[in-house]
Amino acid sequence: MGNYPSKLLSNAVEQFSTLPGIGRRTALRLVLHLLKKEKEDVNLFGQSFIDLRNNITYCQSCHNISDTPTCDICSNSNRDSSIICVVEDVRDVMAIENTQLFKGKYHVLGGIISPMDGIGPNDLNIDSLIANVNKGEIKEVIMALSATMEGDTTNFYIYKKLKSFDVNLSTIARGVAIGDELEYADEITLGRSIQNRIPFEQTFSS
Amino acid sequence: MGNYPSKLLSNAVEQFSTLPGIGRRTALRLVLHLLKKEKEDVNLFGQSFIDLRNNITYCQSCHNISDTPTCDICSNSNRDSSIICVVEDVRDVMAIENTQLFKGKYHVLGGIISPMDGIGPNDLNIDSLIANVNKGEIKEVIMALSATMEGDTTNFYIYKKLKSFDVNLSTIARGVAIGDELEYADEITLGRSIQNRIPFEQTFSS
Repeated sequence: MGNYPSKLLSNAVEQFSTLPGIGRRTALRLVLHLLKKEKEDVNLFGQSFIDLRNNITYCQSCHNISDTPTCDICSNSNRDSSIICVVEDVRDVMAIENTQLFKGKYHVLGGIISPMDGIGPNDLNIDSLIANVNKGEIKEVIMALSATMEGDTTNFYIYKKLKSFDVNLSTIARGVAIGDELEYADEITLGRSIQNRIPFEQTFSS
Repeated sequence: MGNYPSKLLSNAVEQFSTLPGIGRRTALRLVLHLLKKEKEDVNLFGQSFIDLRNNITYCQSCHNISDTPTCDICSNSNRDSSIICVVEDVRDVMAIENTQLFKGKYHVLGGIISPMDGIGPNDLNIDSLIANVNKGEIKEVIMALSATMEGDTTNFYIYKKLKSFDVNLSTIARGVAIGDELEYADEITLGRSIQNRIPFEQTFSS
């Protein structure tokens, strides 16, 4: 597709196509969809992103996105402050909360170490994690990062920083996903799931 | 995914997921992408859609999106005003312009008849097409709508409205797309392409 017949149109298409996974063709389709909506609705649409970016705040304790200075999870006295689950971003907190199987608290890094994207350890909330562990009240740190090279790199970096402290370090289990057929599991996952096999009785606990 | 830890966040996710083809999971990914951008950039992002919707104007002649009262194509005296190509929206104008094979002018319907989506003939720019044809200067109307049931319905509706006028009505050719292997063409397309076969010499002209 070449020349847009309007600058307003090409500008809106341009803006949409800055988003990951949205090419120019999809962007134009989305823009034409917006043009068919009421003015008020489109105003609310555009304004929602402006408001979000300008007024977003983060929990001062775990760094998760939060409308209050301390988030609901961190201020919940029923949750175990001695177990900290380290995650990349808010999506991971939501995913783990959905399992309803974790009763500790979180620490949100705000990303993972990714030299390809120019993200180093100093861009992440790692210092505050170490400072929290240094206070001595945390007994276990569970690393729950993606099973990717970037996740492993970040795991290792944090492991080196924390290994001198008196704290248990663990990572979430890697293995064959529930519902997956064995023959379709990749070799590395299958290999790890054999090495890290668990006692049979444990497979029934949740 | 369940509860968002922030109303600003959930509102922005909600807004993105009103767009066609964007579910909540993708919406959250896009919102987190915006959160990593500069405030100014996100302001420009949101404002571009507000500006577009509030200030969009259409060519008074062909109804295509245009920043000027008459679009560049309609005001171009080198183009043949006696041949009108009827299309659904701006995307089709751009696609046909890219072929560089059409030197007439356009008429943009602004949609196609689609009872499923509640779009009837009165929601489209059909009256102005008939009024234009009624002036007597148009010699040919080429229907260039999608090869779908909605497109066929719209073609037929406009055919009935225009058949009493002294104007040639045609539709763009349906057939096996160039580059497509015959065995993969669907039966209806293949059947039509045999019925509407063209003299061999013509296949070399462009």
